[in-house]
Amino acid sequence: MEPLKIAVVGLGTVGVSTLRLIRDNKDYIRNRSGRDIEVVAVSARRKGIDRGIDLGGYYWSDDPEETLDNVDVLVELIGGSDGMAYRLVTAALSKGVSVVTANKALIAHHGYELACLAEANACHFKFEASVAGAIPALQAVRQGLAANHVSAIHGIVNGTCNYILTQMRETGASFSEVLKDAQDKGFAEVDPTFDVDGVDAGHKISILAAIAFATKPDFSAVHMSGIRKISKEDNQFATDFGYKIKLIGSARVMDGRVLQTVEPCFVPVDHPFSVIEGANNAVLFECDYAGSNMMTGLGAGGDASASSVVGDLISIARNIHVPPFGVRASELSDIAEFDVRAVESRYYLRLSVLDKVGVLADVSSILRDHNISVGTMLQKETIDGEGGVNLLIITHQCLRHDVDVAMSLISRLDVSQKSPCIVRIEDKL
Amino acid sequence: MEPLKIAVVGLGTVGVSTLRLIRDNKDYIRNRSGRDIEVVAVSARRKGIDRGIDLGGYYWSDDPEETLDNVDVLVELIGGSDGMAYRLVTAALSKGVSVVTANKALIAHHGYELACLAEANACHFKFEASVAGAIPALQAVRQGLAANHVSAIHGIVNGTCNYILTQMRETGASFSEVLKDAQDKGFAEVDPTFDVDGVDAGHKISILAAIAFATKPDFSAVHMSGIRKISKEDNQFATDFGYKIKLIGSARVMDGRVLQTVEPCFVPVDHPFSVIEGANNAVLFECDYAGSNMMTGLGAGGDASASSVVGDLISIARNIHVPPFGVRASELSDIAEFDVRAVESRYYLRLSVLDKVGVLADVSSILRDHNISVGTMLQKETIDGEGGVNLLIITHQCLRHDVDVAMSLISRLDVSQKSPCIVRIEDKL
Repeated sequence: MEPLKIAVVGLGTVGVSTLRLIRDNKDYIRNRSGRDIEVVAVSARRKGIDRGIDLGGYYWSDDPEETLDNVDVLVELIGGSDGMAYRLVTAALSKGVSVVTANKALIAHHGYELACLAEANACHFKFEASVAGAIPALQAVRQGLAANHVSAIHGIVNGTCNYILTQMRETGASFSEVLKDAQDKGFAEVDPTFDVDGVDAGHKISILAAIAFATKPDFSAVHMSGIRKISKEDNQFATDFGYKIKLIGSARVMDGRVLQTVEPCFVPVDHPFSVIEGANNAVLFECDYAGSNMMTGLGAGGDASASSVVGDLISIARNIHVPPFGVRASELSDIAEFDVRAVESRYYLRLSVLDKVGVLADVSSILRDHNISVGTMLQKETIDGEGGVNLLIITHQCLRHDVDVAMSLISRLDVSQKSPCIVRIEDKL
Repeated sequence: MEPLKIAVVGLGTVGVSTLRLIRDNKDYIRNRSGRDIEVVAVSARRKGIDRGIDLGGYYWSDDPEETLDNVDVLVELIGGSDGMAYRLVTAALSKGVSVVTANKALIAHHGYELACLAEANACHFKFEASVAGAIPALQAVRQGLAANHVSAIHGIVNGTCNYILTQMRETGASFSEVLKDAQDKGFAEVDPTFDVDGVDAGHKISILAAIAFATKPDFSAVHMSGIRKISKEDNQFATDFGYKIKLIGSARVMDGRVLQTVEPCFVPVDHPFSVIEGANNAVLFECDYAGSNMMTGLGAGGDASASSVVGDLISIARNIHVPPFGVRASELSDIAEFDVRAVESRYYLRLSVLDKVGVLADVSSILRDHNISVGTMLQKETIDGEGGVNLLIITHQCLRHDVDVAMSLISRLDVSQKSPCIVRIEDKL
């Protein structure tokens, strides 16, 4: 059988690992694919730099679009929701060249449009590596669990945040200390915004939700908050009360609508998520027939992502046609959004206030006026010794809207020192 | 598009759940399949019994073979490696009718021959439900992780054993007490042999190994020992030293050969397997590029298995052709077996001996003569109060062969009361 001809564009860690994997496991991949996978062209922004791999055997093109001329598949590993990645993928699909990509931002923002384009041009469009690295989570929900109504997806899908939170808990260091260390070691980007503010996890959740619920990916409907506010005190309090703090991405069906969130959560120590440490990822599907199904593994890194990229290439070599989002693009519906303010949950709240007479009474009245009932409260002097105290609170079930309003009122009190920290408590994922 | 016409033969819990799932999620399944899945015939041994589902809408056939006349797919849910299941599946594939089955014994014993038959007749042959219930583990290693050399598979793949071991640990009850309770509740078969002696797990490991290593399934090369010998003392000792006892199925590449085992193991409490309790299953793949990839979920039950059965049907409706064992049948090689006697590991040993002068010296000499070095030892009076003691030992690394010979010699000592219990210690899976 004819080899599957591919072009690899973008030669960062994932691109280099992809080339190495195709070379290292060549015979093995041929057996699994039923044919050879042949890299007929590579392209990247800069040619000269040392990537730790010999590119001598590949045809180099300075013009990424030129690589599309003679290939079956474009492997897009440039990244970014727009710009070159978007132009190139659009150009490929438009001329019937299949696409494999690890680009979550691209899928989160343009997934629907690109799926339509792929369908119109009868080509493959696969992006397993865009979510949870080596974990074949998209395939699982698209194929293995396809008979199920999925009621919820929960994931630890950002390895950088999970690494930072694990390190904070284990070493007692602050967020900024661990972030700097992670940047020095190359585990975190120089601009960590997408990771630590939950944007990257939001991209991934919107992709998982689209496949699980047969909806158009809707990144604009993801409510995201990141981990910058998490402090040593929060970690200590969580530990003392039997929790770990994890950045959890969720997409849940509630009253026939969909709620997509990314936020730090208190997770009970006996929950399966609590053992997912460091750069590992986990994705959990709640299904009507299959029950809870969880997948864990390496969430990031060149080799882990390359495993999924080449897995997609093998599927294309075998001509496995499954619509990118599980059903035909024309069958994808718009997400009907559940109002995040109506979420009921227990919450952990950290209020930093001055240690003055009457403060507790003021705070308590605001909580009472907004139907927030306190389950556990701990008052602690702040570490910085500026005469402030932290009020650490675990609430009973209450409405997110009430929490937000109450916290806003409390932060406007004269005695308030920092904006409050709000963390949802996930008693049961 | 024409509906996919199927016959469901065998109407136990999985068969009934399969019919219910196809009915309940009809619209959803049509969307995912691109066409309807239509049950055109059902058959089982006895027609009259109450199965909790109305069979009025289905064509009933007393003759299972007759159901093959007008269908695209036979769903075989009879069970058993031979007899009716084997005859029917062979007949189906021979006439080009695709097969979906949950029958692990059939695949473990006849998988290669049936894969050849399916290939010769260009039909689908799928068996996701045969391993780990709802967990799409076969698909993961056949497709998502297909680019990887898998070096090892480890699994908790028998829900009955895991349930019994969990109950024993949590309640302090004996094996036979928990088994009886499980049988009363319907969690264990009246004849529990296949489950508690590791045969069922052995079937599943041989299937996973075949797909992961591209070898013919070779059940005869699986070394199995079950959980009948595990006692309260063993559980207590494991707990005291930071372990849980789990029945682990493994298939490992060692020195270019394959070792397949099913045996109770001491698993460290901080290992991901230790949180897999009750009837849950877990499968872990060690891959060269993807690293460690683990999947957990419901390992048994009608609904869980039906999820995988209908997942396979959706793949067939989409005409997704992947060879049953990942590569063409002609490419499957014979397993080169690693000699189990050459396995090096730490072991937990329980010796029941009379409490007499010199016994410890006798035991110690035998261990020394077979290069077995003792790390931890605890001597405890036996609970039955017959003047015996249990010697509970954790060894340093030693050869399985040496352990077996030494245990055999010790069991032949006059002072020996019961045959020794040997449990491998899995420090790192």
